[in-house]
Amino acid sequence: MKLSILGCYSATPRTLNNTTSQVLEINNHMFLIDCGEGTQVQLRKHKIKFNRIKHIFISHLHGDHFFGLVGLISTFRLLTRETDLHIYGPKGIKEIVVLQMKLADSWTNYNLYFHELTSNESELIYEDEKVEVHTIPLNHRIYTNGYLFKEKEGLRKLKMNAVEEANINVAYYRKLTQGFDVTNEDGILIDHKTVTKPGPKPKSYAFCSDTMYKEDIVPIIKDTDVLYHESTFLEQHAHLAVKTKHSTAKEAAQIAKQANIGTLILGHYSTRYGTINPFKDEAKSIFNTVELAEDGRTFEF
Amino acid sequence: MKLSILGCYSATPRTLNNTTSQVLEINNHMFLIDCGEGTQVQLRKHKIKFNRIKHIFISHLHGDHFFGLVGLISTFRLLTRETDLHIYGPKGIKEIVVLQMKLADSWTNYNLYFHELTSNESELIYEDEKVEVHTIPLNHRIYTNGYLFKEKEGLRKLKMNAVEEANINVAYYRKLTQGFDVTNEDGILIDHKTVTKPGPKPKSYAFCSDTMYKEDIVPIIKDTDVLYHESTFLEQHAHLAVKTKHSTAKEAAQIAKQANIGTLILGHYSTRYGTINPFKDEAKSIFNTVELAEDGRTFEF
Repeated sequence: MKLSILGCYSATPRTLNNTTSQVLEINNHMFLIDCGEGTQVQLRKHKIKFNRIKHIFISHLHGDHFFGLVGLISTFRLLTRETDLHIYGPKGIKEIVVLQMKLADSWTNYNLYFHELTSNESELIYEDEKVEVHTIPLNHRIYTNGYLFKEKEGLRKLKMNAVEEANINVAYYRKLTQGFDVTNEDGILIDHKTVTKPGPKPKSYAFCSDTMYKEDIVPIIKDTDVLYHESTFLEQHAHLAVKTKHSTAKEAAQIAKQANIGTLILGHYSTRYGTINPFKDEAKSIFNTVELAEDGRTFEF
Repeated sequence: MKLSILGCYSATPRTLNNTTSQVLEINNHMFLIDCGEGTQVQLRKHKIKFNRIKHIFISHLHGDHFFGLVGLISTFRLLTRETDLHIYGPKGIKEIVVLQMKLADSWTNYNLYFHELTSNESELIYEDEKVEVHTIPLNHRIYTNGYLFKEKEGLRKLKMNAVEEANINVAYYRKLTQGFDVTNEDGILIDHKTVTKPGPKPKSYAFCSDTMYKEDIVPIIKDTDVLYHESTFLEQHAHLAVKTKHSTAKEAAQIAKQANIGTLILGHYSTRYGTINPFKDEAKSIFNTVELAEDGRTFEF
């Protein structure tokens, strides 16, 4: 998986700070998560082949997470896109986009599918042969979901010595890697586990923004490799975090610790702070593996 | 008047090209004309004290002219603005903004007034003691207006020798500059024109984008000091101009010539051209005083 941070600041875009948007690449799939104003310019700036995006996931309808969406949809039209585009987000997102297309008399020449979310329970909203996406219900001022991206189990690896010794016809090798037991040349059923070993461990990524501290998400994101969790404030402004339903860096770390996350990435910083390093320091007092999102930074895992 | 070009390219924002937006300053009034995506960042980048904007004029509801509006309104809220904000634009603009505020549960803490336009005739839409703003009905794919900003006649200047010789009480000097005739110390009525001369010539600015070639606008913008007229294409692509209801540089110059404009500013260039200099060359074959809008360029007149 490769995660590219296009913007990771809260509230409003500024000359050097972009609002939330990120691209997650999994096995040639390109998923866009949130789409603050100026996202399309960030995509160009970072030379991301954004016409490859087929699925956009919007966490909630505050402007710093989706004001760039209608512009991106419009730009895809001008670039004569033909590929379907799927948009996942809170109920109402379709009305906003369609109203603007109607008043501009500018309809897309590609198919646009809206998947509007209303549930307060985690649900599977996307699945293909390699990836699943689940919602992570969050607690913010308006209806908000995070998103959990999970690779599926890949093919098992053959233990070559064992498989040859077991006298299995090569025509059955693929079935073994898919986890099926097969009959060998002597008519004996061979347990696939005896001649194969697990493939590479599937990776997972959880995006949680915006939200106040919410322990309910721990079971959903348990053992995830990488968690992006908002940390709008430092503990010194914990009262503002409560008031605005955001988290502190310490709270993000507490969630990461309880969920046994591999790496915690912090983001959605308030621009009131001159530097973002204190966010890392604060989180590291609770949880060891902490990284700081920065506009333009990429993470591979 | 001071005109700051924030963006002057058509279609989509790019790393180095912004879509339409400009700020016009007249006697401490700050008017924003169009508001493409990223306008708020351009305002910050060019260090414009944008909280002073009280009136925003939107030409039409194509994204490259207004996708930055809802973000700017939202940012004003976050900056705890208290001053009223007036928005002029085609019918529908209020519904777009209000829907997004409703779904974000984020209402402005300042008063927001929408002045929705539907007329196909030029009309006076704003007036104060120093400035008038009139619409300029344009011909584009959807309902579109340009805007004409006209300073009112200022105070006349006293001819000091003449006014003293006429034996007028100084208490009446201001009335004379306002264009009233007054009675002198000898009881004789003095024609104000004999003791004053006209003040500085009022300036005017016309913004015309987007539009195809439309001669009907000539009488409305007659003798205007500065005209910004779109020139999306060069003559070599005149067929595209007709098809998309845009203008060529040559057509913009023809309008400027017929309307006896002082200076023509070209803009709204298609990004298909590697350089914008040919726009100036083409327009200058018809009309002498031509300038090229560029993002970040200012014009004082």
